[in-house]
Amino acid sequence: MTTTTTSLRPLRVDADRLLTHLDRLRAVGATGDGGVTRCAFGREDVEGREFVAALMREAGLDVSVDAAANLVGRRPGRLSAAPPLVLGSHLDTVPGGGAYDGAYGVLAAVEVARTLQENGVVLDRPLAVVAFSNEEGTTGTPAMFGSRAMAGCTEPGELELPVAGQDRTLAEALDAAGGDSRRLGSVRREPGSVAAYLELHIEQGPVLTGSGTAIGVVEGISGRLTAEVTVHGQANHAGTTPMTDRQDALLAAAELITRVPLLTGPDGLVRVATVGDCAVSPGAWNVVPGRARLVVDLRDMSEEALVAALGRLRVMADDTAERTGTRIEVAEVQRVSPTPCDPRRQESVRRTADALGLSHVTMPSGAGHDAQWMARVAPTGMIFVPSEGGSSHVPHERTVPADIANGADVLLGCTLLEGMEA
Amino acid sequence: MTTTTTSLRPLRVDADRLLTHLDRLRAVGATGDGGVTRCAFGREDVEGREFVAALMREAGLDVSVDAAANLVGRRPGRLSAAPPLVLGSHLDTVPGGGAYDGAYGVLAAVEVARTLQENGVVLDRPLAVVAFSNEEGTTGTPAMFGSRAMAGCTEPGELELPVAGQDRTLAEALDAAGGDSRRLGSVRREPGSVAAYLELHIEQGPVLTGSGTAIGVVEGISGRLTAEVTVHGQANHAGTTPMTDRQDALLAAAELITRVPLLTGPDGLVRVATVGDCAVSPGAWNVVPGRARLVVDLRDMSEEALVAALGRLRVMADDTAERTGTRIEVAEVQRVSPTPCDPRRQESVRRTADALGLSHVTMPSGAGHDAQWMARVAPTGMIFVPSEGGSSHVPHERTVPADIANGADVLLGCTLLEGMEA
Repeated sequence: MTTTTTSLRPLRVDADRLLTHLDRLRAVGATGDGGVTRCAFGREDVEGREFVAALMREAGLDVSVDAAANLVGRRPGRLSAAPPLVLGSHLDTVPGGGAYDGAYGVLAAVEVARTLQENGVVLDRPLAVVAFSNEEGTTGTPAMFGSRAMAGCTEPGELELPVAGQDRTLAEALDAAGGDSRRLGSVRREPGSVAAYLELHIEQGPVLTGSGTAIGVVEGISGRLTAEVTVHGQANHAGTTPMTDRQDALLAAAELITRVPLLTGPDGLVRVATVGDCAVSPGAWNVVPGRARLVVDLRDMSEEALVAALGRLRVMADDTAERTGTRIEVAEVQRVSPTPCDPRRQESVRRTADALGLSHVTMPSGAGHDAQWMARVAPTGMIFVPSEGGSSHVPHERTVPADIANGADVLLGCTLLEGMEA
Repeated sequence: MTTTTTSLRPLRVDADRLLTHLDRLRAVGATGDGGVTRCAFGREDVEGREFVAALMREAGLDVSVDAAANLVGRRPGRLSAAPPLVLGSHLDTVPGGGAYDGAYGVLAAVEVARTLQENGVVLDRPLAVVAFSNEEGTTGTPAMFGSRAMAGCTEPGELELPVAGQDRTLAEALDAAGGDSRRLGSVRREPGSVAAYLELHIEQGPVLTGSGTAIGVVEGISGRLTAEVTVHGQANHAGTTPMTDRQDALLAAAELITRVPLLTGPDGLVRVATVGDCAVSPGAWNVVPGRARLVVDLRDMSEEALVAALGRLRVMADDTAERTGTRIEVAEVQRVSPTPCDPRRQESVRRTADALGLSHVTMPSGAGHDAQWMARVAPTGMIFVPSEGGSSHVPHERTVPADIANGADVLLGCTLLEGMEA
């Protein structure tokens, strides 16, 4: 972490205007307790996209919706044939989510474009501001749809999935939102066709607030390995079965749960390891549990470490099974490879923060972002700002005004660096 | 455990006939996999009761249904005014239960009466064979209804409860089964009005099979104390929240679960302690658990021990909470006091088993039985026979023919002892 100041006076966004826009967007899908529900393709999401499209036009951007229903605002560059610089994030939320996750990154990018316009700055490169569709995936469809489509990574059959609560398929929802499900392939970008992708986002964790740091320079997006652990014991009467005759699946599961944190830390392998759920069968007060199912979530910037941690989890499970007379299965159910951010774009963020006199720290992103898909087609950088209390996906999710301004200023500075280097 | 033989040749039941009756009753509500579903007051339960009423009549018993819908078969004694000896159990099952739980005790008692009749034995005391109504309580109504009614322990408002799956109240179900919900008080027996109550039952646990013992002399029915444990942590993003910043409710719960067995055993307080369920909130793979709810079931023949174990559980919970940064509440939600069996009736069972040359062991009952309510109005004895694999409330619940015969012979012998002592 370093803090430096510079004698130059860098260009800055209109922070008050950005805060006003964040407040106005918060009202779209407001849940009454400060929270927001704008699930992808729902009525509130459509209304939010229309609000942002209008802001894009005010910022002088040329607005369109691509076949994946990504909302795109374009600004020409001096070199019209140069690969564009793309700034983006998303506008949809989880149910009862907060006002900053995704929305901040999009509105700050629009504010950057407006600041360029108001200051008569013409970049060498064309600029595109993108609000990716369906980042959260809370409607029963796979997450990060818009950015995956741009990376050419949608799955066969995905368009036929039903959108929860909307009585239609994803294809129908896309088409209703201005997309074109039959031409999904048209949004695919080839590697090299985008100069760089930059995403500004709230941290969604406590690292920056905890250390009093203004800016997170994201080194990459953690890989994730999810395992399902099934403990097979023997259901039995809780009153009549002596302690020594039991194969208690929950007792074995509990022992394993207490050992999962050993996969992390100084002697561990991965950054974080979480057991998020434990389901017990039959789950009655008077029956010794016969089965328990755990979900174990491992995250790290190294895929090798994820795989090694899964191996160590299997060893722990075998050991627990042997000592408890149970049988324990460990199955890998999902793996998302780590996505490193481009070193030069990390350096751009550091330089810009330094120029603005903002403290910064290099850190991984524990959460997934559209950036992890855009990294497949473009050198990618991510900027984090502090989340109060580390809270996210909750109504009280908040980033204080000074941090909102700092992050947008860093995004503006990086845009000037990246946009001028053609 | 002792085994003795005697030169006398004791009276024995017709074991083949008893096994045939068990098989025929198993067919009523058969689930196709060996299991039985005869939920209280349902069609199959009514059919089962009619089958047994017919067997009672064949055994020379005078059959009636009391106001609590208990099916009663009476046989006069030499002393018509003497308090009767009562033999009983129940005919209803849990859904997908077995063919022996309850049914064995009733059919064996009917077989005892028939054996007396066929051998021209007239007891001093009147004899009553009772199939208590709704022992299992699996229809959303409180368990052991018929025996509680005889002990005068039904609850106000209980009759107005809906019977699950039957679209009627308990009062309506009782009346349809031949009971009289308006005269429920008439079935109450005053202490001293019943000479003794004897119940023969499968063990529903592995103690007898494990030790190769023929007969369990039940010293009493374990008391039970059920506690709900709620762990309050802090829900957070599983990817962005460092391990050191977590208050993981499931991790704390797991630690406590692993300590619950310490409440039992040589240094413990109670016979068995079980965590039968663990419910996690929000229970998502990508969220650090914010709350976990456990149900802890403690059983022992000493109420003092149950209370002491609850106290130790609270100390453990406080300790776990402090070390995990969580808050843990422990609430007692139900307590059933232990019910000792009458020492003289335990001795009757021992003497009878000895006379038959059957090994026996004195043991508590971990499960609840109608006997625990009858013990409030009469000196009570219980006889256990082995349950294969300790299994009960499952389709493969089974007691081998030799044990079926042994238990019924012991019940017959005890009936002769108790019935002749007027």
